[in-house]
Amino acid sequence: MTLERLFLYDTTLRDGQQTQGVAFSTADKQAIAQMLDGLGVDYIEGGWPGANPTDSEFFNARPDTRATFTAFGMTKRAGRSAANDEVLAGVLNAGTPAVCIVGKTHDFHVTTALGITLEENSENIAASIAHLVAEGREALFDAEHFFDGYKANPDYALGCLHAAHDAGARWVVLCDTNGGTLPSEIGRIVSEVIAAGIPGARLGIHTHDDTGNAVAGTLAAIDAGARQVQGTLNGLGERCGNANLTTLIPTLLLKEPYASRYTTGVTEAGLAGLTRLSRRLDDILNRVPLRSAPYVGASAFAHKAGLHASAILKDPSTYEHIDPGTVGNARVIPMSNQAGQSNLRARLADAGITVAPGDPALAAILDEVKAREDRGYAYDGAQASFELVARKVLNQLPRFFDVERSRVISERRRNAMGALVVESEAVVTVLLSDGTRTTNYYKNDNATDLQDAGPFNALSRALSLDLGPYQTHIDGMRLVDFKVRITQGGTEAVTCVIIDSTDDAGNSWSTVGVSANLIDAAFEAYLDAITWKLIHAGARPV
Amino acid sequence: MTLERLFLYDTTLRDGQQTQGVAFSTADKQAIAQMLDGLGVDYIEGGWPGANPTDSEFFNARPDTRATFTAFGMTKRAGRSAANDEVLAGVLNAGTPAVCIVGKTHDFHVTTALGITLEENSENIAASIAHLVAEGREALFDAEHFFDGYKANPDYALGCLHAAHDAGARWVVLCDTNGGTLPSEIGRIVSEVIAAGIPGARLGIHTHDDTGNAVAGTLAAIDAGARQVQGTLNGLGERCGNANLTTLIPTLLLKEPYASRYTTGVTEAGLAGLTRLSRRLDDILNRVPLRSAPYVGASAFAHKAGLHASAILKDPSTYEHIDPGTVGNARVIPMSNQAGQSNLRARLADAGITVAPGDPALAAILDEVKAREDRGYAYDGAQASFELVARKVLNQLPRFFDVERSRVISERRRNAMGALVVESEAVVTVLLSDGTRTTNYYKNDNATDLQDAGPFNALSRALSLDLGPYQTHIDGMRLVDFKVRITQGGTEAVTCVIIDSTDDAGNSWSTVGVSANLIDAAFEAYLDAITWKLIHAGARPV
Repeated sequence: MTLERLFLYDTTLRDGQQTQGVAFSTADKQAIAQMLDGLGVDYIEGGWPGANPTDSEFFNARPDTRATFTAFGMTKRAGRSAANDEVLAGVLNAGTPAVCIVGKTHDFHVTTALGITLEENSENIAASIAHLVAEGREALFDAEHFFDGYKANPDYALGCLHAAHDAGARWVVLCDTNGGTLPSEIGRIVSEVIAAGIPGARLGIHTHDDTGNAVAGTLAAIDAGARQVQGTLNGLGERCGNANLTTLIPTLLLKEPYASRYTTGVTEAGLAGLTRLSRRLDDILNRVPLRSAPYVGASAFAHKAGLHASAILKDPSTYEHIDPGTVGNARVIPMSNQAGQSNLRARLADAGITVAPGDPALAAILDEVKAREDRGYAYDGAQASFELVARKVLNQLPRFFDVERSRVISERRRNAMGALVVESEAVVTVLLSDGTRTTNYYKNDNATDLQDAGPFNALSRALSLDLGPYQTHIDGMRLVDFKVRITQGGTEAVTCVIIDSTDDAGNSWSTVGVSANLIDAAFEAYLDAITWKLIHAGARPV
Repeated sequence: MTLERLFLYDTTLRDGQQTQGVAFSTADKQAIAQMLDGLGVDYIEGGWPGANPTDSEFFNARPDTRATFTAFGMTKRAGRSAANDEVLAGVLNAGTPAVCIVGKTHDFHVTTALGITLEENSENIAASIAHLVAEGREALFDAEHFFDGYKANPDYALGCLHAAHDAGARWVVLCDTNGGTLPSEIGRIVSEVIAAGIPGARLGIHTHDDTGNAVAGTLAAIDAGARQVQGTLNGLGERCGNANLTTLIPTLLLKEPYASRYTTGVTEAGLAGLTRLSRRLDDILNRVPLRSAPYVGASAFAHKAGLHASAILKDPSTYEHIDPGTVGNARVIPMSNQAGQSNLRARLADAGITVAPGDPALAAILDEVKAREDRGYAYDGAQASFELVARKVLNQLPRFFDVERSRVISERRRNAMGALVVESEAVVTVLLSDGTRTTNYYKNDNATDLQDAGPFNALSRALSLDLGPYQTHIDGMRLVDFKVRITQGGTEAVTCVIIDSTDDAGNSWSTVGVSANLIDAAFEAYLDAITWKLIHAGARPV
């Protein structure tokens, strides 16, 4: 049986940017575009060039991708030609091979929100798409509010689709913009659109999760014949988010009837990297990964019920609908598994540590990592701390020094001029492995430490003022980023801090600390950062 | 048209207890049972009496509810009578009006996990249900792995359902235990079960979210004829969770075709309390509420895109599929660089501040917001701080008190036993608007402040120990989340802290602080949180 091709269209960088609290930098967008390309999506929608400075900057510096890079914009306005519409020109100027433009298909919106006639709107759609095609671009029409529009005035809504289709749009994308249409209705309407003459091979589906049905609505549209799927990584997006590609991709590749009917651009290797990709996106955005996320969540294959766990031991298929390793995830029960161990060996090899397959140390490392993760540690974004945990289990962790005591004071007051003064000072006592003891003091303030006059800054500087014989190794170290999140540690909320460090040799590494005390968590991560650096600089304990 | 009755069966206290990181106390269970009863569910499944001490204790102390209290257990074992099965006896001893017992319907599980014959299993089901009925209880049969079982051996799986049904089970509940069955398949199989002679009025549906389709699978079963819906509040449950009643209830009450076809025990008032109930459950479990949750999430009606926000002002129905007030939620129009004056007026109106269109104060507020955003403030997720900025420009910001000085000390050391001790202490001096001065001291440590023994915790507690005449207004305030990010403030990197607060009245609000010093930024956000609370509690400066 020939597999039919489904096309994956990612809008994390455009619609995903509408998530409350998410603001991508250009560097974030570049990193995410590379991740998407590696995963194997067909289209990457990068944003709206010309509409805001960050998006324009990103399009100028966009990475080379196998996926079709797509700029987003809107149909030309009434009363001018497509060639003379400067908003559309701004979108075209990004020079992407594909352009997606949004337009209205709901009569109520045309008259209420745009305030133009229904005919003007249809003409705007046709003329804009024709202009994109004439400019040599692959043209996509994003039919905003299509399902509500179709229910209100099917003839007009269908007419708008035909206007885009007949003008040469490669894809006509049916958007459930409010997220209020239920899956059965989506399926029925997509069938009716196809019956009305727009081929399913030209139809895309774009849903939102306002009723918790974005994934199901997408599947219903595919069942009815749509062949392009739009969504975002981790379901980012305005309000309740867009259809979650991180959920849809494994469903399409692994579950019936989809696995036997369709093919996509995502390979087995891409699928196996999905869990890590999902966590990395959360790291970039400083969001706590959703433990219960389908397929990729830390709890997605966690078997807490005693009856389930014991059945799992007899046969994993008793309580798992897929093998967690296929999406790069792992079963969580008090035992190790093959997929987990081979992942682990690969990660250790990355750190230059070789362990033979089947070595019992592998299971011991997995157990230790899992135990720490239960306490709130997150190792997906902290490879260096992960390496230290493994080294400790393997008896390969040198003990360079011990912090006997640290004390930090932060003060906020008004000075004699009435100005607000914020100062921090720290004292750290270190016991070296040769028995010598050193105490360092550091004080910072607004004026000299603009970047961080905070207590952790004072603490880390006091520690690294004088580490005796190790000092030369850490002189070129710099702390470049610092991420804090509240997370679950056992049954308590704890603070998890991830620190990114670099050095003069061009290394960059990340470490993690967890504590009920934020400063303490940061300090733990910083101690890991120094230890990692000393190991990799070839330092020997004195 | 007569509405058909749908029955809601809540299993938060039983299946929801399988959530990783969730451990209910008896008091938690009592509080949640009361909340469920107030909401209007038909059945409350309280746990498995006899199987674990907490559940037994809870059943002894269960609240009086209008909803039918239900105990959960399993079918009798082979080789003994139902009356002589001590596990079943333990369940019956709880004395609940209804009892739900789980049994196998998948032939593979019967032989692999139970290790008994198919006939023995069917007899166990029939005899157990008959025993419950003879004891005068409403009997429910939970058909574990039904969908997988039906696909593997439809005759045997149906035979198990008939065994329960014919023995007098009021409900036969079809469980998709692994969560792997997609909605279209659930719909088809439920239809076939009804065609095979089990009436839809006796069928329940129990789904899990492993493919992100638990809600859609439930709707598909209702469409096919099932009349009992099982799920949990906030979608708690093993792995990816159970069908989310907090999503399903508004869908069934507000969305078509359900709203016109069915009725449930949930009243309009119950529905209007749903957002608060959802947040309260998270409070009880010390979980961060999911912002993107359908209907009840803090972002569920947040309109960030500029185009959407301006259309919302013309007519909310343009971008909202339901009125947020019907579920007790509220519209949020975040401020951002892209926002215009019309967004601003709407946002101010939500805060109870009326400004006429064209008032020059609008431009002044936008300028101030932009200037602060350039310094690193992020108002998109901090509505309450935004409101305070606007009030300041409008001369409507009361000055309740001034913090003259604050000082915080955090220490990490080894105690006499060699154990690591982490402590923080803080002193805050406050000048009230009437000229009185108060100094508060607070010290915390690992032992007494597990959730946050950090310096900010000490600082905020010291401040809120005694705020004189304002104290009664802030007593019910709780800090529920705390987010830190490094961002750009002018040409320097600064720390931006966002704090989410709630109070006993069910308000939740977010504030932001920015500083080169993390503790200082958090303190600024906390001061905003207190000021916002004082304004909205109607406090007047002394």
